[in-house]
Amino acid sequence: MEGDHITTLSTPVMVVDVDIVKRNAEKMREHWTKLGVTLRPHMKTHKTLECGDIMTGGSRSCIVVSTLAEAGFYADHGYDDILYAYSVPFDKVLLDHRDALEQLRKRPLTDRRVWHVWLKLDCDNGRAGVLHSEPEALRLAQAISESEGVELTGVYAHCGNTYGCRGAEQIHAVAHETTTLVLQFMEKLKAVGISCKSSIGSTPSCSQPISDMAKLSEVHPGNYVFFDVQQSVIGSCGLEDVAVRVLSRVIGHSPHRNQLLLDCGWSALSLDGAGKLPTGYAVIEGHPDLRLLSMTQEHGRVEPLSGQLDYSRYPLGTLLTIIPYHACATAMMHSVYYVHSGGRLVGKWTPTRGW
Amino acid sequence: MEGDHITTLSTPVMVVDVDIVKRNAEKMREHWTKLGVTLRPHMKTHKTLECGDIMTGGSRSCIVVSTLAEAGFYADHGYDDILYAYSVPFDKVLLDHRDALEQLRKRPLTDRRVWHVWLKLDCDNGRAGVLHSEPEALRLAQAISESEGVELTGVYAHCGNTYGCRGAEQIHAVAHETTTLVLQFMEKLKAVGISCKSSIGSTPSCSQPISDMAKLSEVHPGNYVFFDVQQSVIGSCGLEDVAVRVLSRVIGHSPHRNQLLLDCGWSALSLDGAGKLPTGYAVIEGHPDLRLLSMTQEHGRVEPLSGQLDYSRYPLGTLLTIIPYHACATAMMHSVYYVHSGGRLVGKWTPTRGW
Repeated sequence: MEGDHITTLSTPVMVVDVDIVKRNAEKMREHWTKLGVTLRPHMKTHKTLECGDIMTGGSRSCIVVSTLAEAGFYADHGYDDILYAYSVPFDKVLLDHRDALEQLRKRPLTDRRVWHVWLKLDCDNGRAGVLHSEPEALRLAQAISESEGVELTGVYAHCGNTYGCRGAEQIHAVAHETTTLVLQFMEKLKAVGISCKSSIGSTPSCSQPISDMAKLSEVHPGNYVFFDVQQSVIGSCGLEDVAVRVLSRVIGHSPHRNQLLLDCGWSALSLDGAGKLPTGYAVIEGHPDLRLLSMTQEHGRVEPLSGQLDYSRYPLGTLLTIIPYHACATAMMHSVYYVHSGGRLVGKWTPTRGW
Repeated sequence: MEGDHITTLSTPVMVVDVDIVKRNAEKMREHWTKLGVTLRPHMKTHKTLECGDIMTGGSRSCIVVSTLAEAGFYADHGYDDILYAYSVPFDKVLLDHRDALEQLRKRPLTDRRVWHVWLKLDCDNGRAGVLHSEPEALRLAQAISESEGVELTGVYAHCGNTYGCRGAEQIHAVAHETTTLVLQFMEKLKAVGISCKSSIGSTPSCSQPISDMAKLSEVHPGNYVFFDVQQSVIGSCGLEDVAVRVLSRVIGHSPHRNQLLLDCGWSALSLDGAGKLPTGYAVIEGHPDLRLLSMTQEHGRVEPLSGQLDYSRYPLGTLLTIIPYHACATAMMHSVYYVHSGGRLVGKWTPTRGW
């Protein structure tokens, strides 16, 4: 297989351009080295060892994961300083609720080890976390730092509201707001005698960093290593920075509907991106005139943006290269990624799955 | 693990009620035994050996699959009479285009074996197939039956337009229309001296069969073995017939947004069902007053249909049972299904993946 051209692969298949992956990883490292902030890359997009090694520059240290399965997978392969960035109901290790702290207190660790927890702060981004403006946020931080067997390692915020941005200016505004809110909260902590780390995430803000972010201890983006159409729309990257594609072939002509049929359904691409792009669920590379209109499990329907399809341009078997809207969602549909350099296969990456 | 109650499982997790699975399979077999039509169950929803055995009544024969990976998986486990229901670009084995026939002609099989192909007929359902009303449909059937090394085994139609139905009456109307169109086409074939099988599919039409369908040779539904919320909305089943659930736990309270946070994101449920139900992406069993508003990779946001959430009813760790909108899409997100009878675990099923 190695050395073969990717166009020889059976479709549908997900391919990863390792040169772009390395470039994306390098660029992100440069941003944060320059600002003097620790980069703690998130593994959730790819969940592979190989890509983790690229993101950590081979150090196998200081990562974030989204499932216990990932935590176990990376730990088993010699990674350390793994942050399981998830709210604790019983056994998980971001903290944003007093009941969760109670659960940790009830389960002290042996050998004088302590629970290292990060307080999840909601900076108006609307997912997990205790709201930064609530007095409870400060009280919870105090309760954690006063609890025996538990240590407040840091404050963690995910500025997921950058996903509504269009362009660098808007990203900078959200990054500024989140950074300011986190740093204000750090000041409040300092005033009551608590000092710990601070970390914010999201690929948009970390790809377009502002100087204030130098005052943070860490950042934890993940998607940037692959990027995708969504990130290019937001303004985190250009389409030329997207490392993943789904290869697909034309398997049918439907002249009575003015459509092509592809062997790429949602089982290969995911349904993420519905209603977001003029070109439908994705971008078909080199064919800006085509729209991926809809998908069933194993079929994709493609139509022209306007006019009649010229079927002679798309004989059965024609390879169409699809740039995914959301690489995290597309990667989840594949149990193996085919890795290439300049179109030539150089290997396969196998992700971990489950929770 | 066996004998443990499903509520002891780590979440998110997909569980399958094997008693409902057996009941659904039995009911479908009864329909078609009564009508004297062969049932060729589709494996695409679950892709497991165990569920295939239940659907075929242990015969391990006469099935449909949607990927070559499934075809290989079932063949390796002693299944025969496997129809790979997919359009041929090069090596696949439904046929709806003359170029595809040309590809088969160029690749004769050895040892006097012939390609057994089904002509895919589009009965106005809008996916694959040559349109029933086109003269090309009949000409293609003739070309297949006259080709050396290729045999026209049957005519195959998927009445996917039943998915727009609401209630048995509308399903019957679509089933009647598709059956009539297929049977009319069979008459045209007969008039030119061609005789072969006929088959139609879709879980709605096969769960609510009409008497005319007795004139078909085969039917090929698949989803019915699990069913889901979508099928209950269409009218194929009741919610009590749905065999699958995703178990999830409350991992956060967001009083400033009047929301609960669950440990079930699209990586466990899929994004199928967006905008289709008043209760959001799914139905939360026993909580008709809750809506699964949105999901990210590992988080689900739940809000009340109206009014304020009573958080005392949902302490952290509360188990919420989610009935999926589309079982095929949800099953694709899991590399193992936990099987139970009356809530007690009886085993695990492992699906095949890939193409």
